[in-house]
Amino acid sequence: MKHVHYTDIEEKEVHMEGVKDTTIRWLISKDDNSPNFAMRMFTMGPGGHTPYHKHDWEHEVFVVEGEGKFVTEKGEEPLKAGDVLLVPPNDMHQFKNGPTGTMKFLCLVPNDSY
Amino acid sequence: MKHVHYTDIEEKEVHMEGVKDTTIRWLISKDDNSPNFAMRMFTMGPGGHTPYHKHDWEHEVFVVEGEGKFVTEKGEEPLKAGDVLLVPPNDMHQFKNGPTGTMKFLCLVPNDSY
Repeated sequence: MKHVHYTDIEEKEVHMEGVKDTTIRWLISKDDNSPNFAMRMFTMGPGGHTPYHKHDWEHEVFVVEGEGKFVTEKGEEPLKAGDVLLVPPNDMHQFKNGPTGTMKFLCLVPNDSY
Repeated sequence: MKHVHYTDIEEKEVHMEGVKDTTIRWLISKDDNSPNFAMRMFTMGPGGHTPYHKHDWEHEVFVVEGEGKFVTEKGEEPLKAGDVLLVPPNDMHQFKNGPTGTMKFLCLVPNDSY
């Protein structure tokens, strides 16, 4: 059993090509003996973004706070608190914060992806 | 790719022994071709609760809104927005809302549990 507030979990800068002003908190992972999947929280500062990329595992996303854009091969879509996303394996995707404020979103991935 | 706001997803009453004033939204599931796990949102009205029970799959939980109690074999713990829970398989657990307000939490489960 694990029960914490997300702010109690260490916030680490994401160092990866194509990333700007983004941190990650591993809320639940194999380190907690999660049987199947991991829950992470990403926080993006003003103008922050994740890479425009793809990989062979899915994302299940819930936007907790803020507003920005979600980018796919079809272009940009508005993204806001309460939005839900399933990004299938091998689909190009990017999360972009707006020019002001903070965006926070949960992004869950299967254990075999990390 | 699925991109919706959670309020666009049908909210259904949960009919199960031990449940009071609780609804479920299946945000992401096998119906969306999720490869591994499902994301649901539960909403509890004032005094609402889930059953005190256990099962052989895990829950990964994030509390989006409200405050209440989380019950285990060790007793009751305060539960509030931003709390993160890993409920391992076969651990007794219950979610209880307080006497006023609404509690909303995400609860993710592996696909082979439903």
